[in-house]
Amino acid sequence: MARIAPLSGFPEQLPADYLVEQAIVDSLRHTFELHGFSGIETRAVEPVSQLLSKGETSKEIYLLSRLQDAANENRREDKNQLGLHFDLTVPFARYVIENAGKLQFPFKRYQIQKVWRGERPQDGRFREFIQADIDVVGQNSLPAHYEVELPLVMADAFRRLKEFGVPSVKILVNNRKVSQGFYQGIGISNVEETLRCIDKLDKIGSDAVAELLRATTGATAEQAQACLELAQISGGSAALDQVKALAGKYGAHSELLDTGLAELGALIIAAEAQGSDSIEVDLKIARGLDYYTGAVYESVLEGHEDLGSICSGGRYDSLATDGKTTYPGVGLSIGVSRLVSRLLNAGLMKANRAVPTAVLVAVVAEEKRGESDWVAAQLRERGIACEVAPSAAKFGKQIQFAERRGIPFVWFPPELGPVELASAEINESPQHQVKDIRSGEQVAADPATWLPPSQDAKPRIVPVN
Amino acid sequence: MARIAPLSGFPEQLPADYLVEQAIVDSLRHTFELHGFSGIETRAVEPVSQLLSKGETSKEIYLLSRLQDAANENRREDKNQLGLHFDLTVPFARYVIENAGKLQFPFKRYQIQKVWRGERPQDGRFREFIQADIDVVGQNSLPAHYEVELPLVMADAFRRLKEFGVPSVKILVNNRKVSQGFYQGIGISNVEETLRCIDKLDKIGSDAVAELLRATTGATAEQAQACLELAQISGGSAALDQVKALAGKYGAHSELLDTGLAELGALIIAAEAQGSDSIEVDLKIARGLDYYTGAVYESVLEGHEDLGSICSGGRYDSLATDGKTTYPGVGLSIGVSRLVSRLLNAGLMKANRAVPTAVLVAVVAEEKRGESDWVAAQLRERGIACEVAPSAAKFGKQIQFAERRGIPFVWFPPELGPVELASAEINESPQHQVKDIRSGEQVAADPATWLPPSQDAKPRIVPVN
Repeated sequence: MARIAPLSGFPEQLPADYLVEQAIVDSLRHTFELHGFSGIETRAVEPVSQLLSKGETSKEIYLLSRLQDAANENRREDKNQLGLHFDLTVPFARYVIENAGKLQFPFKRYQIQKVWRGERPQDGRFREFIQADIDVVGQNSLPAHYEVELPLVMADAFRRLKEFGVPSVKILVNNRKVSQGFYQGIGISNVEETLRCIDKLDKIGSDAVAELLRATTGATAEQAQACLELAQISGGSAALDQVKALAGKYGAHSELLDTGLAELGALIIAAEAQGSDSIEVDLKIARGLDYYTGAVYESVLEGHEDLGSICSGGRYDSLATDGKTTYPGVGLSIGVSRLVSRLLNAGLMKANRAVPTAVLVAVVAEEKRGESDWVAAQLRERGIACEVAPSAAKFGKQIQFAERRGIPFVWFPPELGPVELASAEINESPQHQVKDIRSGEQVAADPATWLPPSQDAKPRIVPVN
Repeated sequence: MARIAPLSGFPEQLPADYLVEQAIVDSLRHTFELHGFSGIETRAVEPVSQLLSKGETSKEIYLLSRLQDAANENRREDKNQLGLHFDLTVPFARYVIENAGKLQFPFKRYQIQKVWRGERPQDGRFREFIQADIDVVGQNSLPAHYEVELPLVMADAFRRLKEFGVPSVKILVNNRKVSQGFYQGIGISNVEETLRCIDKLDKIGSDAVAELLRATTGATAEQAQACLELAQISGGSAALDQVKALAGKYGAHSELLDTGLAELGALIIAAEAQGSDSIEVDLKIARGLDYYTGAVYESVLEGHEDLGSICSGGRYDSLATDGKTTYPGVGLSIGVSRLVSRLLNAGLMKANRAVPTAVLVAVVAEEKRGESDWVAAQLRERGIACEVAPSAAKFGKQIQFAERRGIPFVWFPPELGPVELASAEINESPQHQVKDIRSGEQVAADPATWLPPSQDAKPRIVPVN
């Protein structure tokens, strides 16, 4: 067998940590379904031509070839060459067009799957990782209130994760129309490039961005200053008044700006009305990508801002088009693996046991294993996860087996042999016993009715303090 | 955008069918956890050298390369070349060795993941598909009772799937030691080749197998006849008596045969003791693969025998070894995609609605959307999946929106305007109403307490009759 070693960028978990990942994925799925999102999965592969249509990540694509075709020199010319998807947006856009006739629009879907990127692995960056996406997509039109709804769904998802010990998440929102309207209002023509410069603010600082703006967009010193002042505005609905005041100061009036402020205002007011303090306006959020046309979102995990955005997205007027019909959408994507990996590495949460098992049924003697199997079957019919001991070792060793796995209860079937059993039937029923191995308490129990305390029924994900 | 078309061999589902697949996967996971199996996932890729160590499937491996490395001519020589896994056994064996120091043995794990095979797609054969595996692996030794336990876990899993309309599954078991002991007892030396011939029985018939046995193993006509008679034995524990009688008839006695019969007997007796009629002895089950050393399993879906085995596996004395330590195991693997695809294509089961949503909250007027959002939030706090209507269209259109998605209930917030509301507060509370759009029944309801009937809370997978 070949040398065994972990592969950099391809994270794997031990069973206890996998329970944490599962709990987070299950919770996200639960929230998305509560909000009426339908689940789908798409295949792992797309034609490379499809993947390349989103140019900037092309260098990260993993190409596929069949081993038996490896000798074929023409392979690289293959127009049907397949690659692994690097996000869930490109496959979803293709899925929507492929199935448009069979879907109901607006179509709300969630999708939780692995994606692959052949980039150089570094802290928090993986080559294989899980994304959890929600999108709403319309046919030819999509009301702006979905730009309000989607970040609130994510805020609800993060709120529900707090019980496991996940820190608060702040969702930062902006609207492209505000930035664009403001830039146009103060006479900047190269809006795209201005957004790309502002997107670098956290990385390179305001002096460098001001210089970059002058160098790449031809902005005057005053225009650059105005852009930077806009980018520094953040907070609740009051932030919108600051934007209006700034627009007044620089005479930056445009219809686009007014529309953007109205949309952004609706979002933050709805968030405040629902009592959510996890959504904030932040005018520096620009998102580098061209295709966003309305709301844009980024999110930071409090106390872990160095991780960068763990949940991002926005509104795009054309997620996909088949020439005749256009599909506008709005969506957000959580980097689940990046989040889970940080939570585990920071020791913020853990599973309180490594196995699903709540009860180990001891084996009195190997020839009486059938009785232990019978007890286990009885318990399982009431949804109690259990397993039967691997051998009829001394009870002390069987208890140790449970202890090492964190199994809270050990069940002892009656030890009576056939002769004792025959006499016992006259006087009393042979007694089953169950022991809580944490407290040592052992009591008589009936396989047909006993239940573990509800907090012990399943492994729980608990905050580490 | 490039031409959009489904890719042969890469199945995808519409949301309603995906609910069926999810329900089956969730149910399997639930059963495996009830039996104390820990979940893990392994990365999608393995070094090709690792994948090739299981030679027979080598031609089906998908190799990976990074797009940016595509010009590099030396790529094919790369010893670290990665490929997509084609099953879950090879990655699990690697995982066990990699993590041996951190796992507790015997280690019971389940794993439900996609695998990829670049074979020619045909009915029930996919290039991307889900497998659900359970294995128990020991360190240096593994008691034979796990060969009894694992098919019973699968029988329990299939029993629980019946409520969705999945037909009965019959698990067919044999033991390599019985076949090998019998063959050796009648003087056949090439046991491996004999097993491979017998494995073809269902495909080519007994005459052709007899000929093949004589041609490839040098068996006499009488030896071939004895092998075929053995392969024709099947049924409950009584079948073992038939094997003993046949061994007597042909003078086929060996210690190996006795051990095999004892192990196979323990399995079928335990199955019968647990009241399971879904496990049967079938002496023709041979499994082509070399590495099985004890029990071997195949399974057929009743009424769909043409699908072939949908759940197979066996006992292997060396799942993995690191030179010093050997890891014997026993495992079974369900071909989930093959099963689900057949169930859906045969129209055996369906989701009773396509969306998770139980309640559509109507919007009285666009400026009152916030009130509908508030109702939805109230319902979600009690675990009721709901969504708010996309627009404040006439109620008839909003009801139609629900109807087209199979959403059973529509919620109407009070229609009163501010003036009416002010007067209503004096006389009576404004009334929320909820309508069951299937029966047309509409009643007053309180957003803080109303619950849907439990059978309507989530989409259900129901048999189609």
